[in-house]
Amino acid sequence: MINIAIMGYGTIGSGVAEAFYTNSHIINERAGQDISLKYVLDLRDFPGSPVEQVLIKDFNAILNDGDVRIVVETMGGVGAAYDFVSALLRRGKSVVTSNKELVAKHGAALFALARGSGANFLFGASVGGGIPVVRPLNSCLTGDRITEISGILNGTTNYILTEMTQNNKGFNEALSEAQRLGYAERDSSDDILGLDTCRKLAILISVITGEKVEASDIHTEGIDKITIDDIRYAKTINGNVKLIARANITQDGVWATVSPAIVTGGHPLNMVNGVFNGILIKANISGDLMFYGRGAGKLPTAGAVTADVIECAKNLNRNVSCFWTDEKRRVYDIGDNICRKLARVSCKDGERAMDKAIEKAQQIFKCKQVYVLSEHRDEFAFVTEAMPEKTLGGQIKELLECENINGILSLLRIEGTGETKSASKSETKSVSKSKTKSVV
Amino acid sequence: MINIAIMGYGTIGSGVAEAFYTNSHIINERAGQDISLKYVLDLRDFPGSPVEQVLIKDFNAILNDGDVRIVVETMGGVGAAYDFVSALLRRGKSVVTSNKELVAKHGAALFALARGSGANFLFGASVGGGIPVVRPLNSCLTGDRITEISGILNGTTNYILTEMTQNNKGFNEALSEAQRLGYAERDSSDDILGLDTCRKLAILISVITGEKVEASDIHTEGIDKITIDDIRYAKTINGNVKLIARANITQDGVWATVSPAIVTGGHPLNMVNGVFNGILIKANISGDLMFYGRGAGKLPTAGAVTADVIECAKNLNRNVSCFWTDEKRRVYDIGDNICRKLARVSCKDGERAMDKAIEKAQQIFKCKQVYVLSEHRDEFAFVTEAMPEKTLGGQIKELLECENINGILSLLRIEGTGETKSASKSETKSVSKSKTKSVV
Repeated sequence: MINIAIMGYGTIGSGVAEAFYTNSHIINERAGQDISLKYVLDLRDFPGSPVEQVLIKDFNAILNDGDVRIVVETMGGVGAAYDFVSALLRRGKSVVTSNKELVAKHGAALFALARGSGANFLFGASVGGGIPVVRPLNSCLTGDRITEISGILNGTTNYILTEMTQNNKGFNEALSEAQRLGYAERDSSDDILGLDTCRKLAILISVITGEKVEASDIHTEGIDKITIDDIRYAKTINGNVKLIARANITQDGVWATVSPAIVTGGHPLNMVNGVFNGILIKANISGDLMFYGRGAGKLPTAGAVTADVIECAKNLNRNVSCFWTDEKRRVYDIGDNICRKLARVSCKDGERAMDKAIEKAQQIFKCKQVYVLSEHRDEFAFVTEAMPEKTLGGQIKELLECENINGILSLLRIEGTGETKSASKSETKSVSKSKTKSVV
Repeated sequence: MINIAIMGYGTIGSGVAEAFYTNSHIINERAGQDISLKYVLDLRDFPGSPVEQVLIKDFNAILNDGDVRIVVETMGGVGAAYDFVSALLRRGKSVVTSNKELVAKHGAALFALARGSGANFLFGASVGGGIPVVRPLNSCLTGDRITEISGILNGTTNYILTEMTQNNKGFNEALSEAQRLGYAERDSSDDILGLDTCRKLAILISVITGEKVEASDIHTEGIDKITIDDIRYAKTINGNVKLIARANITQDGVWATVSPAIVTGGHPLNMVNGVFNGILIKANISGDLMFYGRGAGKLPTAGAVTADVIECAKNLNRNVSCFWTDEKRRVYDIGDNICRKLARVSCKDGERAMDKAIEKAQQIFKCKQVYVLSEHRDEFAFVTEAMPEKTLGGQIKELLECENINGILSLLRIEGTGETKSASKSETKSVSKSKTKSVV
């Protein structure tokens, strides 16, 4: 029999306890021995809860109990969680976590501690919730060179954008609803600003390359400025706005961005709606792959934690968790990142001023097609060619010198020019090239 | 250094050699030692090919070479392949295969042989090509009870149905095109008749339950009778026709079917087009998951084989491949299987005869809505309620007694009444309930 402990009885921690009670038979069979929940550490009381008998408040009871071989960390944060996890790994106890902040920030150090004491530090639940992605990347696609990841890694923001797209809700209304339904926390700024997605992307790149990536080195934009009008323009080019994490991995570095982007046509990420997540992988032998499922929530996350506990139980005296080292992966300057964008331009009101502004945009950007929303006379949009961000910046600056132009309302990256686009030919909307101004 | 051999230098075998040459650096690093291709067994000559120097024609050279620790079987069939693989496993050599027929038929016996000699028998490439699904099911979703699988497991038939749906091609035209493009073999009857899908489904159920399932016990229908009209009716209920493998797993048995089905609305399998595969899993803790990618083809399949070779290299003296035993899983009688179907009915020509036939159908099936293709006066279709297949059979028999009805043109199962349907609300088409006859 193996004794385990859970640190932190919040949403995820209580989900893990529930998973162990619900599936105990299956779990014991697959672990090859019985797994028993000996302690739950939390400063709060939970009278009447199923774990009441095993609740403790003192971390040292776990640290000093030689019978406890595996500990689940579902406290969150990088303060006490880091101290506790370090101490446990030093004592040779394996740790399983769902804490992406801890993994993104201290992963390399914690893997080293685990290796030193013959324990394991597993973190499958920190990316993609219940979707198995970390282990497949590490143990299934081993014959492949992975060259690209693009994904929807945050259920909260995807729910908000889906509601805005499908039900015409404004950002604030969609956010309130997400909070009411429990899909967003009261302070959801880490989700909205893209920081949660950014940490997950940093973890995925590190799993693939074996090198450390600082989340703070990844160019990150949130969805807080996305409006219904952005979504309407996206629809005119047969796309949806999604918060996309993207990494292009080269031999010695990585291009990495987190930003709202327009995902067009039959791209596989276009069907990832609501709280679901999708992670698309380009591998040089196996081709395009996507992992899809519930990327967050109590039980899906608990499912991934439970699988990692079983993996630890099957490898009690065998370190299998050396995912990356302290060596830093080079993150390229975003200015050299090549992409296409939809640019929304605010111009002086009136048909003539707008026509002059459009003429200027076409002159600089060589764009044949321009989009105008039917009720607006003071803005238009167009799609740029693929070019480096800094070239785009220069051309935008030139555009802003035009007296009929007030400013740039938004710049949205366009995702999906690869072969995956042709997955659904029938969805491609044809827009006449002869008509310069398309009122939508 | 580990020496390996490949048996069979056809499409997949040559892909495996290519993968090893292309990614040798990565593969050696991940295997923890150098992997060297010592022999390629094939009765044919391949002058000028990269494996010319290592080509042999005698199987015993591999069997008797103590340096060869891992052998790739890409010959196909269950004759010589079975004899060779058995002999190799008995000698303690690990075997990796992409041969789904071999695994579906002899898997349990081969796992037992491998266990007996401390070798491994791995087969990840036999289901889903390059999509990692066998290993995730076996090592990632270990904390879960898996209750349902539904999937598109055959790229050839999915390509044909996608061409029929998106480009209005007839079945024969789409099949010829698939053959011309190399997506279908000259004799593609195993694909078209659903046998290939059926074997893959049997393997997946066995991986999940740990028990043997005879492919011949699974109710299997092919796509050979699907017409453009079936696809048009499917579109009227906002669906697409796909060849679906489905298993509902209970405590002691399984419902399993392979058949063309109408996949409706925002169901995740609806975006799986062309040669792509998708495998949807329902897990009681982790929720709905989908694995998506290239399910066949030279390189994707080679990618999965290569990953299994690396897994064998990392577990040279440790049996990790006991997937299922010879104990048989009970497969329930298809007659008790509950489903909804779209029924296409041929009736006597003319408005009055059709109205009488429709009246009869509505009387028996209590269906409010009936669909008629605009140019047809001698057929209609309707959707049944969910009921056991045998009840449906009885009601159909009753319907056929009506003098205005000639026969049943097709019966297509409808997939997707689960929660995944709501993934994309906006795609749901509303059809007026007050109108009895909907001309489409």
